[in-house]
Amino acid sequence: MFNSINEECGVFGVFNCENASELTYFGLQSLQHRGQEGCGIVTSNGSLHIHKGEGLVSKVFDRDNIAKLTGDHAIGHVRYSTTGESQLLNVQPFIFRSFEEDFGLCHNGNIVNADELRLELENTGSIFQTTSDSEIIAHLLKRQSGDFTSRLQAALPKLVGAFAFLFIFEEEMYAALDPNGLRPLSLAKLGDGYVLSSETCGFTLVDAEYIRDINPGEIIKIDKDGVTSATFGTKIQNKMCAMEYIYFSRPDSYLRQDSVYKVREQTGRYLAKQAKCEADVVIGVPDSGLPAARGYAKEAGIIYEQGLLKNKYSGRTFIQPTNELRKLGIKLKLTVVEELVRGKRVVVIDDSIVRGFTMQKIVDMLWSAGAVSVDVKIASPAIVKPCFYGVDFSTEAELISNKMDPVQLAEFIHATSVDFLSVENLQAACNTDSSKELCLACFTGDYPTKLYKDTDSANTVIK
Amino acid sequence: MFNSINEECGVFGVFNCENASELTYFGLQSLQHRGQEGCGIVTSNGSLHIHKGEGLVSKVFDRDNIAKLTGDHAIGHVRYSTTGESQLLNVQPFIFRSFEEDFGLCHNGNIVNADELRLELENTGSIFQTTSDSEIIAHLLKRQSGDFTSRLQAALPKLVGAFAFLFIFEEEMYAALDPNGLRPLSLAKLGDGYVLSSETCGFTLVDAEYIRDINPGEIIKIDKDGVTSATFGTKIQNKMCAMEYIYFSRPDSYLRQDSVYKVREQTGRYLAKQAKCEADVVIGVPDSGLPAARGYAKEAGIIYEQGLLKNKYSGRTFIQPTNELRKLGIKLKLTVVEELVRGKRVVVIDDSIVRGFTMQKIVDMLWSAGAVSVDVKIASPAIVKPCFYGVDFSTEAELISNKMDPVQLAEFIHATSVDFLSVENLQAACNTDSSKELCLACFTGDYPTKLYKDTDSANTVIK
Amino acid sequence: MFNSINEECGVFGVFNCENASELTYFGLQSLQHRGQEGCGIVTSNGSLHIHKGEGLVSKVFDRDNIAKLTGDHAIGHVRYSTTGESQLLNVQPFIFRSFEEDFGLCHNGNIVNADELRLELENTGSIFQTTSDSEIIAHLLKRQSGDFTSRLQAALPKLVGAFAFLFIFEEEMYAALDPNGLRPLSLAKLGDGYVLSSETCGFTLVDAEYIRDINPGEIIKIDKDGVTSATFGTKIQNKMCAMEYIYFSRPDSYLRQDSVYKVREQTGRYLAKQAKCEADVVIGVPDSGLPAARGYAKEAGIIYEQGLLKNKYSGRTFIQPTNELRKLGIKLKLTVVEELVRGKRVVVIDDSIVRGFTMQKIVDMLWSAGAVSVDVKIASPAIVKPCFYGVDFSTEAELISNKMDPVQLAEFIHATSVDFLSVENLQAACNTDSSKELCLACFTGDYPTKLYKDTDSANTVIK
Amino acid sequence: MFNSINEECGVFGVFNCENASELTYFGLQSLQHRGQEGCGIVTSNGSLHIHKGEGLVSKVFDRDNIAKLTGDHAIGHVRYSTTGESQLLNVQPFIFRSFEEDFGLCHNGNIVNADELRLELENTGSIFQTTSDSEIIAHLLKRQSGDFTSRLQAALPKLVGAFAFLFIFEEEMYAALDPNGLRPLSLAKLGDGYVLSSETCGFTLVDAEYIRDINPGEIIKIDKDGVTSATFGTKIQNKMCAMEYIYFSRPDSYLRQDSVYKVREQTGRYLAKQAKCEADVVIGVPDSGLPAARGYAKEAGIIYEQGLLKNKYSGRTFIQPTNELRKLGIKLKLTVVEELVRGKRVVVIDDSIVRGFTMQKIVDMLWSAGAVSVDVKIASPAIVKPCFYGVDFSTEAELISNKMDPVQLAEFIHATSVDFLSVENLQAACNTDSSKELCLACFTGDYPTKLYKDTDSANTVIK
Repeated sequence: MFNSINEECGVFGVFNCENASELTYFGLQSLQHRGQEGCGIVTSNGSLHIHKGEGLVSKVFDRDNIAKLTGDHAIGHVRYSTTGESQLLNVQPFIFRSFEEDFGLCHNGNIVNADELRLELENTGSIFQTTSDSEIIAHLLKRQSGDFTSRLQAALPKLVGAFAFLFIFEEEMYAALDPNGLRPLSLAKLGDGYVLSSETCGFTLVDAEYIRDINPGEIIKIDKDGVTSATFGTKIQNKMCAMEYIYFSRPDSYLRQDSVYKVREQTGRYLAKQAKCEADVVIGVPDSGLPAARGYAKEAGIIYEQGLLKNKYSGRTFIQPTNELRKLGIKLKLTVVEELVRGKRVVVIDDSIVRGFTMQKIVDMLWSAGAVSVDVKIASPAIVKPCFYGVDFSTEAELISNKMDPVQLAEFIHATSVDFLSVENLQAACNTDSSKELCLACFTGDYPTKLYKDTDSANTVIK
Repeated sequence: MFNSINEECGVFGVFNCENASELTYFGLQSLQHRGQEGCGIVTSNGSLHIHKGEGLVSKVFDRDNIAKLTGDHAIGHVRYSTTGESQLLNVQPFIFRSFEEDFGLCHNGNIVNADELRLELENTGSIFQTTSDSEIIAHLLKRQSGDFTSRLQAALPKLVGAFAFLFIFEEEMYAALDPNGLRPLSLAKLGDGYVLSSETCGFTLVDAEYIRDINPGEIIKIDKDGVTSATFGTKIQNKMCAMEYIYFSRPDSYLRQDSVYKVREQTGRYLAKQAKCEADVVIGVPDSGLPAARGYAKEAGIIYEQGLLKNKYSGRTFIQPTNELRKLGIKLKLTVVEELVRGKRVVVIDDSIVRGFTMQKIVDMLWSAGAVSVDVKIASPAIVKPCFYGVDFSTEAELISNKMDPVQLAEFIHATSVDFLSVENLQAACNTDSSKELCLACFTGDYPTKLYKDTDSANTVIK
Repeated sequence: MFNSINEECGVFGVFNCENASELTYFGLQSLQHRGQEGCGIVTSNGSLHIHKGEGLVSKVFDRDNIAKLTGDHAIGHVRYSTTGESQLLNVQPFIFRSFEEDFGLCHNGNIVNADELRLELENTGSIFQTTSDSEIIAHLLKRQSGDFTSRLQAALPKLVGAFAFLFIFEEEMYAALDPNGLRPLSLAKLGDGYVLSSETCGFTLVDAEYIRDINPGEIIKIDKDGVTSATFGTKIQNKMCAMEYIYFSRPDSYLRQDSVYKVREQTGRYLAKQAKCEADVVIGVPDSGLPAARGYAKEAGIIYEQGLLKNKYSGRTFIQPTNELRKLGIKLKLTVVEELVRGKRVVVIDDSIVRGFTMQKIVDMLWSAGAVSVDVKIASPAIVKPCFYGVDFSTEAELISNKMDPVQLAEFIHATSVDFLSVENLQAACNTDSSKELCLACFTGDYPTKLYKDTDSANTVIK
Repeated sequence: MFNSINEECGVFGVFNCENASELTYFGLQSLQHRGQEGCGIVTSNGSLHIHKGEGLVSKVFDRDNIAKLTGDHAIGHVRYSTTGESQLLNVQPFIFRSFEEDFGLCHNGNIVNADELRLELENTGSIFQTTSDSEIIAHLLKRQSGDFTSRLQAALPKLVGAFAFLFIFEEEMYAALDPNGLRPLSLAKLGDGYVLSSETCGFTLVDAEYIRDINPGEIIKIDKDGVTSATFGTKIQNKMCAMEYIYFSRPDSYLRQDSVYKVREQTGRYLAKQAKCEADVVIGVPDSGLPAARGYAKEAGIIYEQGLLKNKYSGRTFIQPTNELRKLGIKLKLTVVEELVRGKRVVVIDDSIVRGFTMQKIVDMLWSAGAVSVDVKIASPAIVKPCFYGVDFSTEAELISNKMDPVQLAEFIHATSVDFLSVENLQAACNTDSSKELCLACFTGDYPTKLYKDTDSANTVIK
């Protein structure tokens, strides 16, 4: 009934810092790659203040509205693009008003049993004002008793799925991470205060000192007495989403203390070992395919070149999909440096393939530029199952690797060949061990949580 | 705890009409005088669509967003100015999402026991996302059972105060008016469909044919089978807010089938009988003081002149209150035609006096223009008590007539004399009878409902 | 070749005043009725600063851009609506940059021989960047020698038509009025400084003290030594545009020391004498028809009522002309108070009729409201000739009185009868004498200047 | 007197192409790196249409305004950032209106003798409305006779400096390049029509086929009969600005048929030969330093890594220069991948150093990330002289290499060492020969044109 898939996004919070709203503004800029559709900040100086809007952080905030966000603690959110009317209603943080005490929340992740919970909540008296599944937790919390940590401990186990939450109250803040640790969330120190961020690149920007990651199934409370930790849930695993390493995170971030850049380079190295081919040049698809291309080239001993360039000014164009000029779209975003490709056997590396259309256009551009062969190497396994934890492919129908093997896919995208990194090599590149696993569900169908029959809005049955 | 005073505003709805969103757009323009801070429309074509924003109807809506509001029934709202951050959160209509069925609502009026209801609702599990008291009714309805009419019949008696509600569902609409009939709401026919409007001027604009007013304590349902009526509450009275006649409504509207223009003219005539004085010219303060000035002049046999002009382009100015140039503000809005005033004994008529500052500036301008005497006549009684039903004077502190008798007030505003219309004469002008009374609480302190100690956010004790 | 008809607009200037840009901002707001399409201000603090844009004064200017307009003298302009692309290029003031000295100019009026002058200037080396005829004077001035007054004295006699110019230099200002005095321009004192305004209502707003009108064929210079006057041209007449009295100016302004309100009231009185009829009520078309309606009613001894109301919030609507809903347009702007009209013989007064369509809709609305007869009285003579001096009817084709006598016109607009004020009575109402004449060209065809065969862009031949 | 330095920017034109305005819109997007301050398009469908504004192409143009730009030929312009009020007045193209025929022009480059020409033109009757030196050519052309080619041949030799002009008329277009060929301008074929672009990357985007470069001192006319060529001036040289190779152009463009990417890579190779040092890793400063870093690494046999990343979302921030948080600015734009730098001897390559501040911050970031040594290699010679042809360093005062030798500079920017590419090696990398020279004035002081004493607005004396 609802299209309640929440997208991957980014959260940032500061506690006990002067210029809390400005720091959060900068922090959200460093997380902007995780969501460009909308953003917002809630601060507290004893009472809560909010500003949010659609668009980039640099558009939504200005001197005036930042100045009104007074207080020394704050939480903020950047939201990934979605479709549909009245998007502003779904932009986070949300504020909930209460006689007891107001609070704000923001959420990175997606709740798998959102519909079941909503239905149950509605049947017992709750009413909802958005289609966001992030609103559910507020209702669940309302029905618990005790202090806020106790209420979190009682409510969070009811949520199935991926979640990294930040909560802001008048005098304190809370953070919580789902029991599988599907989404990243880390803690740092800044002066006498604290910073929380979806990625460690946010710490670097504001000169905060990394302390540790929030653990799966952990609740932390930050108040004037410092940080206290509690746990919730029973089946705790450390299964961070593999796509965080492969695609989402910035290469200068660290995930579970591993450099994202380094992991990506290693995927390329493993790919070179696994799927070597004769070639004159290795190129990567900017930006997330570049480190793997570097690794591949080094390992394979083939020269790496920056054969594809990204146009940093390519914004959205108003030209209609039906327009003859539509094909210009991809060229506005990516350009081939012909000089580096002409007459060459080319290996082109990307981080992943979802639908296959973009790679098809890239391959075509490489042939046009005079490539002699175009071998496509993908630095992750083939995606064959939808993600219900926040990644933007939520139905089987949209996945190309569901329908074609690599040989068929190569034909479809006009490439000489296509190879995918093996699951084992991905795990090796990510330095997994028994205490540091990956969610590999989209590659293997092995989901770390229970699934629900209504989960997929396109009615794909998951077995 | 909350500043939950809802201001007077305007609602408009259409059912079973082609171009429902466009008709509502025009209807809201005709009600724009009732609120300029924000506006919104919800339509239904089987599912609900919403667009809303801050500012005038002509700014918030454009061809594109009106075109997206598909469907043949719609409700809309214009909102009076308030203060505070994140006003957009409080702009109506609100939409409530549910597995059962989504619905939208908008509300004209103010709930006196909002804090008590909120507290009770929160204590039993409800959570709120706005500071608007209009959100309360959704929670009360949620807790009832049966069809929607039954739920309204169970929930509405819990609300104390003034309310004219419109509700929109996928296939039907509802309207409801409080048991004292404090706010106006009327029904009209348009082709095979229906129109609901806070004022009848909205019917004239869209060529709809007036049928009747919604009665105090009445619920009407409009669906494909037409209009059905139900009642709720026990102590039904017909006590429309006197300020609707005096100030809020457009002079071309009809309230309880009386022409607002005519009533205002009659207040002037009664004022002339009650408080005659020697004068050479009668002038009115535009726009709402003009009909009374006409009536006064006719009755008194003194010539009426348009001695005060309103500058139609005077918008808000960014000039600071602390600026030396601030005094220009009132001159930007009103100008004296010196020619009509110089050397004359002037009677100036306004509809009411709240704080006294504007009238002080007008009197000063008339002296500057060469008036020989300036007698101020007010076409309503002195306002001595706050209003808790939506009119924008909610504390005793801000009322000048609370602190001064007419002689002191004349001195304060620099006038030769000040007279107010008597309560009896106001009633006569409004053609009251036992079935058609007025709420006169702000003049007499005789409130038609129970009051609550927390009602007044400024802690004024009401006895 | 060019559509170089400049519309009627408004100019305002201050010299040697603190807050020059703020005063000009307020002054332009008081002249906003003379033009809503665009506006601009140039100030000087030794060097010139400019800001301009499309739309109302309150939209174009804000705290930030006013603060950047430093200096103690300023000129500003409000521009009447026109059509066509890139309107911003034509918004005034214009700035001309020069090694010698920069200057800014703005212009109210229209140059009849613009095409001839442009052609001659182009043939001898000038190039133009706008289609505005106000650019011509800069080129003519450039070709003269001597001080600026001498150059004005040499250049201005070449211009045929209507013009009130303001010029701003780094240290001084100039104003000039055409030899027929077709447009109003007055001078006032404010502290140690001076104010220039198209209308005296601008002086009232900023508390400046009226000194005198600029004379036809006069140049005044304002610098640190005060005001000095010079003359230019040979055939000086005092023939102010009659439409300034009838329509353009605000009723609280004074034209040649006569109250505009009073003149309009007198047109109504003369109309009553000249074209009396049996009636129960007199109503005026807001806003410019109201004073004449008052005068008519007094003289005729018939009661005056405010039977037509203007909706102050009716902005532009995006609804297409082809839309079924288009007819709502006029109703959004004007409403009939039925109560005052039903069953009555109505006299309706307007200031003028150009095309006849608006009056047709008003008459229809009055019949719908139940009028028994609708006699239309126009407080000016029938317009039978185009205006080449800035009024917005520049071709014979668009004038209804060109094609129909009053009897035919009454039929066309569905009225019982139509009467126009006679030319003699208009002159009497305006208190004309041999030294204070009117330009009556649009009523009589007696143009005060030579005309040029290319004048009319629609190729109407003027004989 | 004027600050008439025109910045480097970009021009694009199409002739005889359907969708001319859309093609130009895309072409300008591909040239967006050459200027982000403002942009505009003029089209002709028999008469000229214009739209322009401040900001990026994607912001200034939308479906509506592109649709109004009808016609099958067009010129467009992107403008580099400048300071000062009323920038819109200076945004190009300009349109000049004339009885004879309107035309539009846009200009990439800077006129050295602008002040002299302006003064002379003013003294003989011209008046200017902008401070742009591009307005001068219109005045010079006006004073010539004959057809437009003849007038260009007479007027262009008077201009001293850098210029690539596009002119649009109702039925034809013209292009012209200065006699030193300082700025790039190329011609391509698209269907039956033609495309002109500052860089060949614009051709790739719209699938136009490169024909040839416009020659120094060449005028080309494009009309329905095709392309015709003429020449002007006497001392023709082929001295393209070296900074076009080093910094301005996109790496996928070709300058004089050499790949810009390849040239930049060659600068790195020569730099490695000339200034080798012991190191563990080579990194480049994105984006323009990357190809040289690649070349350096290959030649030196040191591993290349992407150690510096650019944040693609780093827009302008409103945070004040005086703010404590200002230092965050550079971190928002560039990030170090610590993993690749820690414990390493680092060579960092950039294309050039102007003021030195950015490189100082980069070096500091590398030290912070744990670099053991930081050797800075610059892929161009030290800039010691201002540029008067459009590059954004127009006074000696702002150039750091003017004041320090490499040893002092290393100390200033906290680097282990600093090396610059030699002039000879730059020439070699650019494949110069006697028919294909470079303007090297900023490195050598050997200006290809006469200079003028007023050229430098900061009064730097050039010897």
